[in-house]
Amino acid sequence: MSRLDVFINRMVSQRACLNFAAQATAAMPGPVFELGLGNGRTYHHMVENMPGRDVYVFERAVASHPDSTPPDDMLILGDVHDTLPAALARFGPTASLIHADLGGHNLEKNDAFARAVSPLVEPLLAQGGLMVSSDRMYFDALEEVELPEGAVPSRCFIYRKP
Amino acid sequence: MSRLDVFINRMVSQRACLNFAAQATAAMPGPVFELGLGNGRTYHHMVENMPGRDVYVFERAVASHPDSTPPDDMLILGDVHDTLPAALARFGPTASLIHADLGGHNLEKNDAFARAVSPLVEPLLAQGGLMVSSDRMYFDALEEVELPEGAVPSRCFIYRKP
Repeated sequence: MSRLDVFINRMVSQRACLNFAAQATAAMPGPVFELGLGNGRTYHHMVENMPGRDVYVFERAVASHPDSTPPDDMLILGDVHDTLPAALARFGPTASLIHADLGGHNLEKNDAFARAVSPLVEPLLAQGGLMVSSDRMYFDALEEVELPEGAVPSRCFIYRKP
Repeated sequence: MSRLDVFINRMVSQRACLNFAAQATAAMPGPVFELGLGNGRTYHHMVENMPGRDVYVFERAVASHPDSTPPDDMLILGDVHDTLPAALARFGPTASLIHADLGGHNLEKNDAFARAVSPLVEPLLAQGGLMVSSDRMYFDALEEVELPEGAVPSRCFIYRKP
């Protein structure tokens, strides 16, 4: 399996999981959080597929495609170690859907980051809210959800707050 | 259709076209040329799927993933406006397969680049050789080939020297 194969599996799985999660949480009133903007392709997909829902983006420095740059009031700038706790104070446990693609090349670094941010992400979700991640996360009370059709196991993970 | 959808279509089409072209040219003795290395994912895929074939990479400056960096003797460094004519002098019209993913965000720029490099690419191909491109190219004597299953029209193009 080539790096191109792995990458395609990751992108296709991300889309399948996001589409599933968007539909499953469509009736929930709380905001959607995108952790990391990058090029903005996934943010663009989320906004297009969740019309009428507030999608906030957490990012250190915006470097996205002009078509995929969030408006200023939907952007939460800073280090997630600071901005996620601040978001809990601001929004409370209300998020309907949180997505993260930590996606670096260094698997060990990604895993360490996943362990560090998991306890900051977990309290943000509303009851029934979903977390979609390209890496395994480390939650106390969230349940892992079965992947939808089209997603490749271990290329994407979905968690639900019971 | 979101930018994520477009991107997935492009990656999936690229893989389908490359796999088709690799098989169709498997019996040809000439080298394979990859124009642009980028992250190196596609180069990694080409090397993995064409064992025993020489894959040369044309690139201005190498910035690829360590897993996907060609050995020095397979790297042709410089501007393609110089290195493609130099390759014709070195290899003659022997290439079995040429791949290019110009792939910038600016469609007009990509098209101008495709027009500029098409006449430099065309003479490099051996008879029966294939060119796979993510952008429409502008050749005099090459024929457009029907896309294989899995490729999305206008996300990838295949040309053959008759």
